[in-house]
Amino acid sequence: TAPWVRRALEAGMRVIDLSADSRLDAARYAEWYGPHPHPNDLELARYGLVEAYRPDLPDARLVAAPGCNATAASLALLPFAAAGLLDREVPPVVTVVTGASGAGRATALPLHFSELDANARPYKPAGTHRHLAEIEGNLGRATEQGRWLSTHGAFRPLPVSFTPQLAPMVRGILATCTVRLNEELDQDAAIDRMRAYYEGEPMVHVQDALPEVKSVVGSDRTLLSVRHDVRTGLMTAFATIDNLGKGAAGQAVQGFNVAFGFPETTALEMEGRWP
Amino acid sequence: TAPWVRRALEAGMRVIDLSADSRLDAARYAEWYGPHPHPNDLELARYGLVEAYRPDLPDARLVAAPGCNATAASLALLPFAAAGLLDREVPPVVTVVTGASGAGRATALPLHFSELDANARPYKPAGTHRHLAEIEGNLGRATEQGRWLSTHGAFRPLPVSFTPQLAPMVRGILATCTVRLNEELDQDAAIDRMRAYYEGEPMVHVQDALPEVKSVVGSDRTLLSVRHDVRTGLMTAFATIDNLGKGAAGQAVQGFNVAFGFPETTALEMEGRWP
Amino acid sequence: TAPWVRRALEAGMRVIDLSADSRLDAARYAEWYGPHPHPNDLELARYGLVEAYRPDLPDARLVAAPGCNATAASLALLPFAAAGLLDREVPPVVTVVTGASGAGRATALPLHFSELDANARPYKPAGTHRHLAEIEGNLGRATEQGRWLSTHGAFRPLPVSFTPQLAPMVRGILATCTVRLNEELDQDAAIDRMRAYYEGEPMVHVQDALPEVKSVVGSDRTLLSVRHDVRTGLMTAFATIDNLGKGAAGQAVQGFNVAFGFPETTALEMEGRWP
Amino acid sequence: TAPWVRRALEAGMRVIDLSADSRLDAARYAEWYGPHPHPNDLELARYGLVEAYRPDLPDARLVAAPGCNATAASLALLPFAAAGLLDREVPPVVTVVTGASGAGRATALPLHFSELDANARPYKPAGTHRHLAEIEGNLGRATEQGRWLSTHGAFRPLPVSFTPQLAPMVRGILATCTVRLNEELDQDAAIDRMRAYYEGEPMVHVQDALPEVKSVVGSDRTLLSVRHDVRTGLMTAFATIDNLGKGAAGQAVQGFNVAFGFPETTALEMEGRWP
Repeated sequence: TAPWVRRALEAGMRVIDLSADSRLDAARYAEWYGPHPHPNDLELARYGLVEAYRPDLPDARLVAAPGCNATAASLALLPFAAAGLLDREVPPVVTVVTGASGAGRATALPLHFSELDANARPYKPAGTHRHLAEIEGNLGRATEQGRWLSTHGAFRPLPVSFTPQLAPMVRGILATCTVRLNEELDQDAAIDRMRAYYEGEPMVHVQDALPEVKSVVGSDRTLLSVRHDVRTGLMTAFATIDNLGKGAAGQAVQGFNVAFGFPETTALEMEGRWP
Repeated sequence: TAPWVRRALEAGMRVIDLSADSRLDAARYAEWYGPHPHPNDLELARYGLVEAYRPDLPDARLVAAPGCNATAASLALLPFAAAGLLDREVPPVVTVVTGASGAGRATALPLHFSELDANARPYKPAGTHRHLAEIEGNLGRATEQGRWLSTHGAFRPLPVSFTPQLAPMVRGILATCTVRLNEELDQDAAIDRMRAYYEGEPMVHVQDALPEVKSVVGSDRTLLSVRHDVRTGLMTAFATIDNLGKGAAGQAVQGFNVAFGFPETTALEMEGRWP
Repeated sequence: TAPWVRRALEAGMRVIDLSADSRLDAARYAEWYGPHPHPNDLELARYGLVEAYRPDLPDARLVAAPGCNATAASLALLPFAAAGLLDREVPPVVTVVTGASGAGRATALPLHFSELDANARPYKPAGTHRHLAEIEGNLGRATEQGRWLSTHGAFRPLPVSFTPQLAPMVRGILATCTVRLNEELDQDAAIDRMRAYYEGEPMVHVQDALPEVKSVVGSDRTLLSVRHDVRTGLMTAFATIDNLGKGAAGQAVQGFNVAFGFPETTALEMEGRWP
Repeated sequence: TAPWVRRALEAGMRVIDLSADSRLDAARYAEWYGPHPHPNDLELARYGLVEAYRPDLPDARLVAAPGCNATAASLALLPFAAAGLLDREVPPVVTVVTGASGAGRATALPLHFSELDANARPYKPAGTHRHLAEIEGNLGRATEQGRWLSTHGAFRPLPVSFTPQLAPMVRGILATCTVRLNEELDQDAAIDRMRAYYEGEPMVHVQDALPEVKSVVGSDRTLLSVRHDVRTGLMTAFATIDNLGKGAAGQAVQGFNVAFGFPETTALEMEGRWP
């Protein structure tokens, strides 16, 4: 979308960019996507993950709506990164189970009903999925900046292992994020930290029960929970989102609301349905 | 099944036990399942993961067919455990995406079509799923015993983080296993080690391509692959099986064949179908 | 729900009954369901298919929300019945493809994910499904009464062949209704008659394209179309609804709105989502 | 495939044609598909629905494997057509619920997982699906020729109403066929006639229970049942097949076996799996 963003900015418009083109600084964009056609525009961009970048967004001329996988993984781990609990030496291991709509509407054979139904498959593992750039950026910044993050300024990304897995469902992401914290937190302390971080957040709900994808499909909410594993000392944080809600359009609207001064949940209070 | 196993052994029969009752020694069984009603029988049992315990199986009076998740995770990681490359300090992180038939035929609400379709959910995470006892046992033994494992004798389990995730499919398991090896292997070295370990194995196929669940459903085969992540130094090993094939009945038949001296692949050469 | 309806009426409340207990007169109820515990209450009931019974509903003390299959089949065929075009000698042949939620939340084995996924099966065919009583009543009344129907008064049901078929989806009904009309209508005349009948109806949309289930899931709308078969002279009318929307809760709300004098579409303007 | 068939015949080979190109005589082919490039070859063709054309097949130089929908609908209704019970004036109403693989592997948007999952839709209704030519031919011939049919010779097709409906499953067809017989048969007489017609047939099983798609997927069998509707006097016959088994490859092998003198079930004894 970079050429369209350019034209809109030239026309004096403010832009919410749902594509991947405005999410990284020029150097990191080049590393993951190739040279950006309008690198100066990236200096205007603010990363639109409202729960972590809210103070950075008002009056932004260009808001980059985050990637769906990056949203789920980042929201699950930010409470711990912001407390300095993530370690650069033992990378978090993030796997996601994701629905077919994450790949869009193109008619590639792997998305044919006959190929995906009754199937599950990993794709772009081991550092090759480009949403990783966002996850590592968010966790790296939070480790250095704490609660509220700023899109611009130098930082070191925090390395992450990331494996997406396609499952036979249309919408939704389940992120399972296992980490060794610098300082082990027991179950109560882990979920308390998650709750404290998201206190007052309208679009994120921390719960004791493990989150399900179906609970969020059709809504713009994120469900989070966490489990401490007493046997290994590791902690696993879980997130579910609708990849087309909080993972795409809903998050873009949320960023728009904050950037333009509307009440943050305007047009976002739709609930999903069950079943 | 322990009471039935008892009666069959008393009658002089040899037993292939598809249940979980014969898979662990008495102490570990008590830890994970509670006291075993016939602990002496467990001394007769041999763990029926043929690819790792083959020399242990001929003439066994009681063969314990492994759990489905344990089969997938163990087969993915055994080549590295057997080479002493797994570390007790940084546990492997194993997640599985698994189909509904793994929970059997009981009509619990979470397995109702309306609840599971278009859904994905984690269950029994953070050290609470009992297949973990088998995975940790297999990896611990391989670390100490190398290529071929013996069911009996002391060993230290190798701690593992394990998160099962239910997805809307009937059959199949995709295991995604991310580890930091003691000694980093590049992509070629990693897959070569996997291939060398399984050389000549009739029911396990190591491939360059990432394995899919649909490729094995309806068969008794295991598909494996592995990826080295140059950015984090971690390695992710993948396995797919049919949980009712190699993960259950097929593996029981394979163990029967070895225990009774039949050609190992007798009755196991059925292929799945696509699509 | 009959006992609860009784108690509510005694307390002076007005009732919208989503169950099957208030949909038929006492004689027909006895025939299809057995003796009704409070047959006098049925004299208060009005059948809540708003598009056909609207004038009958204001000030009703008891509104019976129609069955899901009956809603779809009736809406597809009423335009032709009301014009006297259906024949009692050659019964309409109605088949529906319906989702699992139509059977509710009970955990019967046929609704287990492993049993229904990748499956389709007929059930209660050949005059044994109780929604048939409603379909035959609606078509019989329309044949005798024309455009607007009255719940009470004698009429002859119009016989219908009805075959429900369960398919692996959670929500939605596709009704396919094939009839020989008394007077053959060509394609234009058939769809014009459908459009004329539903002109101004806010919750029913007649379209040229064949309707899909996914277009209505999550909404309270009905999509209709029709095809004339020049080779056989028969006509096939199609309807899709969300069985839990227009087929249940949405229709109950619509009936409530009309009975209580609220704007008819209050709380019913939610759209579904795609995909 | 007509050009390939031509080349194979010229080379002296005998051909089993899985495509639609050899299923109709030249006149009917032209009507449904356009002019045939090698109409003389059609005079060599024999229609490979073994259960109805078996005596016609030995030594055939060209066997046309029937269409999947035509197979299911024809097998359901042939026992009644062969007894002269079908009426040309009141056409049978056939609807099928069919899986995505019937449309092949092409990546059209309607077959994208996100479009078909949680959906059902009619397609090519009202005399526009080309398998209709086969159904009408089979029923017309049976009405005139009785038990065993001959591919060649004049006959009048028996008109049929046919509506295919795509459902979110990969494989399988459920055919629901409702007819008014010339002479009403009660339940016992109807199923007895079906059983008598298929007595000794190895690949067709008539059962009291309603057939399910999942029971035949992965096999080459056909399941049939029938219900008499005492209220309307109509009869509904049901068939389920795997569209890629009995509906395609399995039927081609069966035709090959008969044409070449092999035991008819050679290579066709594979069972499906449940679940």
